Amino acid sequence: MIYDLVVPQFTKMLGNLLAILDEAEKFAEEKKFDVGVLLQSRLAPDQFNLTRQVQVACDTAKLGAARLTDTEKDAPAHADTEQTITEIKSRIESVIAYLDGFSSERFAGAAERRISQPRWNGKSLSGHEFLIQHVIPNFYFHATMVHAILRHNGVNIGKSSYLGVMPFRDPA
Amino acid sequence: MIYDLVVPQFTKMLGNLLAILDEAEKFAEEKKFDVGVLLQSRLAPDQFNLTRQVQVACDTAKLGAARLTDTEKDAPAHADTEQTITEIKSRIESVIAYLDGFSSERFAGAAERRISQPRWNGKSLSGHEFLIQHVIPNFYFHATMVHAILRHNGVNIGKSSYLGVMPFRDPA
Repeated sequence: MIYDLVVPQFTKMLGNLLAILDEAEKFAEEKKFDVGVLLQSRLAPDQFNLTRQVQVACDTAKLGAARLTDTEKDAPAHADTEQTITEIKSRIESVIAYLDGFSSERFAGAAERRISQPRWNGKSLSGHEFLIQHVIPNFYFHATMVHAILRHNGVNIGKSSYLGVMPFRDPA
Repeated sequence: MIYDLVVPQFTKMLGNLLAILDEAEKFAEEKKFDVGVLLQSRLAPDQFNLTRQVQVACDTAKLGAARLTDTEKDAPAHADTEQTITEIKSRIESVIAYLDGFSSERFAGAAERRISQPRWNGKSLSGHEFLIQHVIPNFYFHATMVHAILRHNGVNIGKSSYLGVMPFRDPA
């Protein structure tokens, strides 16, 4: 279950983010403005801009998987230096590729592991608490903020762009 | 795990939403405008307004728990007629009270249950798919949109208002 919540589902959502960024590029071309304007956009002056929202969504997925499996030292480093939409999309693709390397077996014992991060000053959560109360709400927060910033700027996306395709079974 | 993802965690997030709406009321009082303006606010003309975002977050939690436990007929009805912030907060409180009635035992077998909703025209998801690919991302989407709309309007909230308190253990 932890694997399914983190690896395939975050991979799917990151893929949806790539498609949303494609829509942003299309919109900028049609309206003849530099898509970089959207990357710098935010909903409030003291909020992260679009680029930073993508970076934090990516880091939440990457470090969530790494910390739950106690393999943070093996996670790829990202310098947060992306300037263009191509670089932003590469960042997302690199996290998708990283997640693809995880098997469900690697998450054995993850719920019981004690997990901390630098800014917590030695305080910790169980893996179960970290996943449910931090990683999941935080990941969806930043993924939704990407959507909200683009939606506010007129990009042609809706909730189905965010949720993506459902694996429906047809009626019997 | 399903119980923990849905019942205590959505309860916590709905409590955070109540606190965020308190901040919205405080902001409206300070600035001397009717808080109803915020309830009608949205980030794009074809997006749900704040009231509707809260209603859908509430319904996603309520119907998520109900469908996963196959007890939809017992779920309280909500007519979506809320006009004031007091009514909106009562809606949230009623879902918190509803969730409080669930025990973890009621979620036995939820992952394997076939789940549908009216608009799916007979198509279905497994409970596992429904939870991970629909209920969870949808709930956090609308909870984050409430945050985004208020943040955009200048209400004094940050990501910690959204995530709420973490059950940290102090360093040993």
